[in-house]
Amino acid sequence: MKNSKNVLSYLFGKGALGQLAKILNQKELQNKYVVYYIDEYFQHNDLLEKLPLKSEDEVFFVQTSHEPKTSYINDFRDRLVQKNKTNPGAVIAIGGGCTLDTGKAVANLLTNPGNAEDYQGWDLVNIPAIYKIGIPTVSGTGAEASRTCVMTNPLNGLKLGMNSDYTIYDQLILDPDLTKTVPRDQYFFTGMDTYLHCIESLNGRYRNAIGDAFSHQAIQLCREVFLSNDMMSDNNREKLMIASYLGGCAIANSFVGIIHPFSAGLSVVLDTHHCIGNCITMNAMEEFYPEAFKEFNLMAEKQGIKIPRDIAKNLTEEQYKALYNSTVIHEKPLSNALGDEFKKVLTYEKVTEIFKRM
Amino acid sequence: MKNSKNVLSYLFGKGALGQLAKILNQKELQNKYVVYYIDEYFQHNDLLEKLPLKSEDEVFFVQTSHEPKTSYINDFRDRLVQKNKTNPGAVIAIGGGCTLDTGKAVANLLTNPGNAEDYQGWDLVNIPAIYKIGIPTVSGTGAEASRTCVMTNPLNGLKLGMNSDYTIYDQLILDPDLTKTVPRDQYFFTGMDTYLHCIESLNGRYRNAIGDAFSHQAIQLCREVFLSNDMMSDNNREKLMIASYLGGCAIANSFVGIIHPFSAGLSVVLDTHHCIGNCITMNAMEEFYPEAFKEFNLMAEKQGIKIPRDIAKNLTEEQYKALYNSTVIHEKPLSNALGDEFKKVLTYEKVTEIFKRM
Repeated sequence: MKNSKNVLSYLFGKGALGQLAKILNQKELQNKYVVYYIDEYFQHNDLLEKLPLKSEDEVFFVQTSHEPKTSYINDFRDRLVQKNKTNPGAVIAIGGGCTLDTGKAVANLLTNPGNAEDYQGWDLVNIPAIYKIGIPTVSGTGAEASRTCVMTNPLNGLKLGMNSDYTIYDQLILDPDLTKTVPRDQYFFTGMDTYLHCIESLNGRYRNAIGDAFSHQAIQLCREVFLSNDMMSDNNREKLMIASYLGGCAIANSFVGIIHPFSAGLSVVLDTHHCIGNCITMNAMEEFYPEAFKEFNLMAEKQGIKIPRDIAKNLTEEQYKALYNSTVIHEKPLSNALGDEFKKVLTYEKVTEIFKRM
Repeated sequence: MKNSKNVLSYLFGKGALGQLAKILNQKELQNKYVVYYIDEYFQHNDLLEKLPLKSEDEVFFVQTSHEPKTSYINDFRDRLVQKNKTNPGAVIAIGGGCTLDTGKAVANLLTNPGNAEDYQGWDLVNIPAIYKIGIPTVSGTGAEASRTCVMTNPLNGLKLGMNSDYTIYDQLILDPDLTKTVPRDQYFFTGMDTYLHCIESLNGRYRNAIGDAFSHQAIQLCREVFLSNDMMSDNNREKLMIASYLGGCAIANSFVGIIHPFSAGLSVVLDTHHCIGNCITMNAMEEFYPEAFKEFNLMAEKQGIKIPRDIAKNLTEEQYKALYNSTVIHEKPLSNALGDEFKKVLTYEKVTEIFKRM
């Protein structure tokens, strides 16, 4: 039985970003500097002009071509140490999953000693983080609602977040205007993260009424968005932003299944991004999720999105071994999907065959 | 645009009450006494044996034959003042809407000066309340998730809560085992509170994607529960508990419509309980909510529940005037349903006719 922690507050609506100044004007934050982590996409964008930036604030741009590494988080912390700016009134992250996770991880590290890699795991963070505000600019990962921030540690190959109640955002600003300029394929791939992890939850063995309720509603919204004629209409961008938040709440009360572990394998071995990795994986999942497989392909077709194929068809034996290892390491979701004996189904041969089918 | 505050944490599942001791064992609460407000129904019940009571804790039973009055809340505060017990580690409320609201109101009054009536309104509470835990024992009001605690002040006839971010529970324990012994008709009436306020929201003018999403899911769960053969099966009690929580989240992002104001009229003038008042009102709402009217009656029939009739058929002119006044005073929900000119629809004659039809 999980004691699920919620995001403290959320402000939703077109133009909600305009309320940031008001939020920063609350008593506890007045006269304090703020540290921003912003997706590099916005480096030369009028978004910056919309922020209530003060001269003493610090702004860092987050690279998103690779998912955050523990060293990358440590480096952000070190730069604040050098500037003697380790006690901001707020950490604000503006961007997609990578950026939102970066904000969470740095906010934890500013109050807790040691390095990012020391906190990869469950409930290792002991001291409340800096107050933090999450502002998603693409919908689907659920990072805005989750209690983790995924990081890879290249030294040991571990891809694992700081799972902690202190990792959760204190405030969300959910402004559907911010997702207007997302490229269509990225919008689809990222949105599908919500759809797929809810499908995985609902097909798992560890179920409960609250996880199910959040998943059902998130899937319903995804259907309305991705089976419509224009997935990026004003209404649909609103719906997908809510689906992402609810999907994040769903996952806090359940587990993923087979898709996410295979996608994690692709990510570790071939450096495939999480969301596109899920979609590539889904193309080889017909036997496990037959109905969702059909619906997923219908959605992709309806929106004219091409899922990359054959990315793991002709790899070396060593690569397949690495893929196998970094897939079956995810015991919780795989036993959620297939039972404790999941390795009897997912033998090395079977896993390799699945990757070759992608 | 509302900055919606969430309940901080929720623990859901059969037997979740057993986790209360663990929650009270958190660092901040150790060695502190706790004040309990428990629905009088449990006064001679084995529930008490399941609580981790310490000798220094205070236990009060809450009468639920009338909804809480401001003087009732002040009196609870005074009793703690007399006992020099105004700074507990936690206030814990165990019961239905009345009891949950009592816990919220007293927790606010323990840290804020003055009396309960001073805080009836919006954002008048300035100081964070005592840490509080809500444990619902009947599902439907959404009081466990809302930022208000409804109280009546007999001196001025005002029925209004302390609407404040500080009114929200810090921790919920959602244990469907606790709703096993609810009488069938009360189970139905209270559950319908969620169904009806979500119907009102979805038929209003002030809509948004997140309020809609919560409402849709809560209604879907109500349908599964009340259109099934046994609304009180284990599964259905779980679902209704979640529906109530999600319905509370919905109402935080939207407004009710015509049903709740009429029900409030019944409550002020005839002392009708909120939830049964909603159902009685619904029987006269066919013209405003035709589809929901049909579904509501189907649900009542399916579950064999009789809604009282003719309770406002033969009243005095004075009583009809009082009913009219205490209905049309609810401007926000009524303009949500009918527009700013709602009084052109809801004339004195029309309102009286509606009450006579109930």
